[in-house]
Amino acid sequence: MSAGFVFTDPPRVAPDLAAAFAPYGVATIHEAQGRVGLLASHMRPIYPGARLAGAAVTVSVPPADNWMLHVAVEQCRAGDVLVVAPTSPCDAGYFGELLASSLAARGVVGLIIEAGVRDVAALTAMRFPVWSKAVSAQGTVKETLGSVNAPLVCAGRLVQPGDLIVADDDGVVVVPRRNAGDVLRKSEARERKEAATRARLQAGELGLDIYGMRQKLKEKGLIYRPFMEEG
Amino acid sequence: MSAGFVFTDPPRVAPDLAAAFAPYGVATIHEAQGRVGLLASHMRPIYPGARLAGAAVTVSVPPADNWMLHVAVEQCRAGDVLVVAPTSPCDAGYFGELLASSLAARGVVGLIIEAGVRDVAALTAMRFPVWSKAVSAQGTVKETLGSVNAPLVCAGRLVQPGDLIVADDDGVVVVPRRNAGDVLRKSEARERKEAATRARLQAGELGLDIYGMRQKLKEKGLIYRPFMEEG
Amino acid sequence: MSAGFVFTDPPRVAPDLAAAFAPYGVATIHEAQGRVGLLASHMRPIYPGARLAGAAVTVSVPPADNWMLHVAVEQCRAGDVLVVAPTSPCDAGYFGELLASSLAARGVVGLIIEAGVRDVAALTAMRFPVWSKAVSAQGTVKETLGSVNAPLVCAGRLVQPGDLIVADDDGVVVVPRRNAGDVLRKSEARERKEAATRARLQAGELGLDIYGMRQKLKEKGLIYRPFMEEG
Amino acid sequence: MSAGFVFTDPPRVAPDLAAAFAPYGVATIHEAQGRVGLLASHMRPIYPGARLAGAAVTVSVPPADNWMLHVAVEQCRAGDVLVVAPTSPCDAGYFGELLASSLAARGVVGLIIEAGVRDVAALTAMRFPVWSKAVSAQGTVKETLGSVNAPLVCAGRLVQPGDLIVADDDGVVVVPRRNAGDVLRKSEARERKEAATRARLQAGELGLDIYGMRQKLKEKGLIYRPFMEEG
Amino acid sequence: MSAGFVFTDPPRVAPDLAAAFAPYGVATIHEAQGRVGLLASHMRPIYPGARLAGAAVTVSVPPADNWMLHVAVEQCRAGDVLVVAPTSPCDAGYFGELLASSLAARGVVGLIIEAGVRDVAALTAMRFPVWSKAVSAQGTVKETLGSVNAPLVCAGRLVQPGDLIVADDDGVVVVPRRNAGDVLRKSEARERKEAATRARLQAGELGLDIYGMRQKLKEKGLIYRPFMEEG
Amino acid sequence: MSAGFVFTDPPRVAPDLAAAFAPYGVATIHEAQGRVGLLASHMRPIYPGARLAGAAVTVSVPPADNWMLHVAVEQCRAGDVLVVAPTSPCDAGYFGELLASSLAARGVVGLIIEAGVRDVAALTAMRFPVWSKAVSAQGTVKETLGSVNAPLVCAGRLVQPGDLIVADDDGVVVVPRRNAGDVLRKSEARERKEAATRARLQAGELGLDIYGMRQKLKEKGLIYRPFMEEG
Repeated sequence: MSAGFVFTDPPRVAPDLAAAFAPYGVATIHEAQGRVGLLASHMRPIYPGARLAGAAVTVSVPPADNWMLHVAVEQCRAGDVLVVAPTSPCDAGYFGELLASSLAARGVVGLIIEAGVRDVAALTAMRFPVWSKAVSAQGTVKETLGSVNAPLVCAGRLVQPGDLIVADDDGVVVVPRRNAGDVLRKSEARERKEAATRARLQAGELGLDIYGMRQKLKEKGLIYRPFMEEG
Repeated sequence: MSAGFVFTDPPRVAPDLAAAFAPYGVATIHEAQGRVGLLASHMRPIYPGARLAGAAVTVSVPPADNWMLHVAVEQCRAGDVLVVAPTSPCDAGYFGELLASSLAARGVVGLIIEAGVRDVAALTAMRFPVWSKAVSAQGTVKETLGSVNAPLVCAGRLVQPGDLIVADDDGVVVVPRRNAGDVLRKSEARERKEAATRARLQAGELGLDIYGMRQKLKEKGLIYRPFMEEG
Repeated sequence: MSAGFVFTDPPRVAPDLAAAFAPYGVATIHEAQGRVGLLASHMRPIYPGARLAGAAVTVSVPPADNWMLHVAVEQCRAGDVLVVAPTSPCDAGYFGELLASSLAARGVVGLIIEAGVRDVAALTAMRFPVWSKAVSAQGTVKETLGSVNAPLVCAGRLVQPGDLIVADDDGVVVVPRRNAGDVLRKSEARERKEAATRARLQAGELGLDIYGMRQKLKEKGLIYRPFMEEG
Repeated sequence: MSAGFVFTDPPRVAPDLAAAFAPYGVATIHEAQGRVGLLASHMRPIYPGARLAGAAVTVSVPPADNWMLHVAVEQCRAGDVLVVAPTSPCDAGYFGELLASSLAARGVVGLIIEAGVRDVAALTAMRFPVWSKAVSAQGTVKETLGSVNAPLVCAGRLVQPGDLIVADDDGVVVVPRRNAGDVLRKSEARERKEAATRARLQAGELGLDIYGMRQKLKEKGLIYRPFMEEG
Repeated sequence: MSAGFVFTDPPRVAPDLAAAFAPYGVATIHEAQGRVGLLASHMRPIYPGARLAGAAVTVSVPPADNWMLHVAVEQCRAGDVLVVAPTSPCDAGYFGELLASSLAARGVVGLIIEAGVRDVAALTAMRFPVWSKAVSAQGTVKETLGSVNAPLVCAGRLVQPGDLIVADDDGVVVVPRRNAGDVLRKSEARERKEAATRARLQAGELGLDIYGMRQKLKEKGLIYRPFMEEG
Repeated sequence: MSAGFVFTDPPRVAPDLAAAFAPYGVATIHEAQGRVGLLASHMRPIYPGARLAGAAVTVSVPPADNWMLHVAVEQCRAGDVLVVAPTSPCDAGYFGELLASSLAARGVVGLIIEAGVRDVAALTAMRFPVWSKAVSAQGTVKETLGSVNAPLVCAGRLVQPGDLIVADDDGVVVVPRRNAGDVLRKSEARERKEAATRARLQAGELGLDIYGMRQKLKEKGLIYRPFMEEG
């Protein structure tokens, strides 16, 4: 899809469904979803403890040009997450306190951007969560079109408008809108199972026994030998 | 300029002028200055909330050799900022608690170094702010000369001794000494304007309207279309 | 050494000897040891103020396969530190809350891993310290053998099982088991000397004088000149 | 899409249509397509002058596990291009002379892989072109499933099975199958226009005049001033 | 200096002086100049054996916007070298065959750009030498002003218009215009001295003896010991 | 081991044994050895087709200080390979034509260095093969001791003096001296087996059948489905 289009009113993952993901971490959701949809590990939160779950509004932007972010604001609703990627790599500061104020006024819950952000002290004070590739005070221009709500590759993963985005200290995961209910159930199940395992591990049981690994390790040929120092 | 020179007593940006930059962030000052002088985004503060404004004492150092830092300390006055770059890339820990104690005793307000620092827990406890490319316990030698108060390229930008340095969570900006007054006025003006815009955005107005972007976007050919799901 | 071996019960640095390193930072210990054994600066703690000292249990793992971590848990005792490196570069999340619970139950004091970790919010809440190359929610498989307690290169340094590992905000250092007593004495001596120097620097004395550098600088040809502005 | 699926016989861009792209470079095609579909610049050919055009067979692989490449070979026809991406970053050598021999025997025209390759001397001697992120002799295992002919993000761009892939010294571009005819016509048109412009530039005309830029530059405020040396 | 200025007719290093550097490599010139002025090692030639010496025309460009290159062409004379740096990091392909044709028509001898280039097969065929940070087919826009012949930091070094630029397989060095004659003489002297040393080394003499290092090594405490295998 | 020692006359892998590795590539040898000992993939040859096999003389060097290379030359014999690593990361040009002339005069077959080299055009003309992390004209000093023939970690792998080093376009592998005979036999066996497999693959047989993978893939749950286009 070339630049120059704004697609209005895509269907979104339902707000209450997004909200139901609150108890589950990105690692759990990514596992529950079959290990797909995790953005690259260079996407880091601007403050520890940042966390969000919401519906993607996607924005493709030219390098160092944030014009389309202003266009995108109007397309956002309460509960949305702005997901932004430049068409070639860029660490300029596309986003700061003013745009965050505007998004917060519309109920947008945060930003995922594979580029730079600025005003991070103010964003932290506002508790407006951002996951970015860089922090940079470098400004951007408003000269060239991009697109809003087209399918977007951000940090190595395909994001469709309306998809569920969940982010925490471990990173960012995208869940296709239609899979969100199923992934929620699987996340709940996984969490219950992990809680039980955690209790056994805390009590001193070994994963080798809980998961029944000893036989398979033996079949693979694992050998135990007393340590002998050289020399 | 080859190594082996210490230039003494360069004129500095006036301390009260430097102090007047306190209310303004690096992003604001960088914009007010016409978007020049921002150091590369790999220069990161060692603790959140670090902030400084002062006059540059520049130090060119050989890779993994911090001898000239000891020479530079004597050239520093209250209100100065040490700005250090190696002659080829290096992440060794040139600077730690001892040098910070010495600089703090002279009233130096912080360090900008495109290399490594160490003792960051102690520096954080002292609230001695540092922006660096790396944290590393690797020590350095004292064998080879560099220079103090020669013009220096640090993290991609030219710094002259006596120039104003401002740094915060967003990064580091250099303002040429003679421009500092002008940039201060422009920063004030910019901040006032942004405060007004922020209030309007917080009230729910759109940047598209505040900045009058709709006509220009139309002229560029931006097209709005209802979102239609494939399939 | 090829994969597929677990060496049991290597001799460890004595727990009380490891504990005696508590007052000394990584930078000090690295200096005291003659500037060897420092891991690469990309190994960063998951929270500020993280700190540990203990005996290495080494684990060589295939890329994105954490099976051997489960095997390694059983080989750990109170006071041990897990030291993990993949056989080729990988940022997947090998380690999270469950493995940390299991290690904590055995008294393991922390993890050094040249790869990714996940559940960092939970690990931070538990105060289970980790130094890693990345944070990533990407899971791993359990299909291929590695080794436990073989000599290991982690982040550029050789680690033998039972060696002393010390880590803090400045990074990670390995001290060969048999050298630990000697390095402890040298660390104490160095710390005492630095404390005295620090006091003199805080009182305003210059390193140039304390260290007697002026003559050597002169012999090397250092020239002082009044700063003259160009133009 | 989770792992474990092979989708057979996707429709491909027609071989003669792919072949018709031979005269056009990646830069021309990328422009003709509206500047979308270019893979990241870290994808480099293993020898200068490498070039291909063909239909994508997509392969999603686990880190350091090349089992699915063997599965994918069977799905390939003459004129295909294998497009491979790992589920998390990896530079292991997934591919070497044996797999190249097998693909060449089926008429496959080359490989695009966001990971490592090996046997590059032999691949160069065979003139089997490869664009990769790394060269590495590190082997891989055959333990875990991936997928063949599912939509794939490779080096930051979405590739559907059957899409046209063109690669040369400038990099790799993907053209959606249904757009290939249109992009071919636009590439031809662009090439004709560039040939005319090239002739005028070679004759000494200026782009400023050919493209009529002087008025727009003036309106933007460009100022010409005689150079005055400082000092 | 903010954007929007073209400084015309800066004095240049004399063409015959630039030409006299032909026999000397970048490494020799960098040494002769006192080890200053070397651009960062990520600046690589697009083909082996590329080489140039000429006078800098400097161009500061916005990220992914090559408008000012067209402006710069008109400012170039025979023997010039275009030296280009973006205001924030960018790997887009600013430059290709058309601009090279235009520069070649004016006698420009090559390009140094801390960003991307494209059409590298054509540039290689033309033997138009380029040193760049990346190869990328990604196009650029023509919307925003930069500057021509202002002082520029490129790949970490300050370049003034008219300065001598020399580049070869080892990288790129800048020599201030007024120092070029002196650096030429020193390069000649260094080369003569190295030729004599080379002959002695080829005859089997040791650098330890030629440079008289043995005594200094002994004073520093170097110890020779027969190798004893552990164990 | 601290700096300041030269260990003389370590036992070396026998020259004729090293020479017997000539027909085998690094990838083959690495496999034959059980997939250990491969240096990191950032170690690249300075020209295509470079290749060597010989006995390691190890050199630990301070950052940007090549004094110990001169010391090491004297320790080298015909058939040796110099293996160099800095104590912290550095891309300076430690090595150029003069040192290569000296090593070549002694019959040294090449250099492996996890840092920079210079004079690469001359080294290429001499066919003196080098694998390095960078090419840089940046010179080094001769002020600080390192060590020769101590165990060394280079590019992530432990190298003992006298170990066999083999390098080609795929990278660099280290084989412990005492294992070289065994690894040679396994390389021969592997090469024979691969030749047979290659012939079958070239004849159109599938790896799926040759390696008998179909049953295991089925057991893992691989599913084949006809491709169905969305929409």
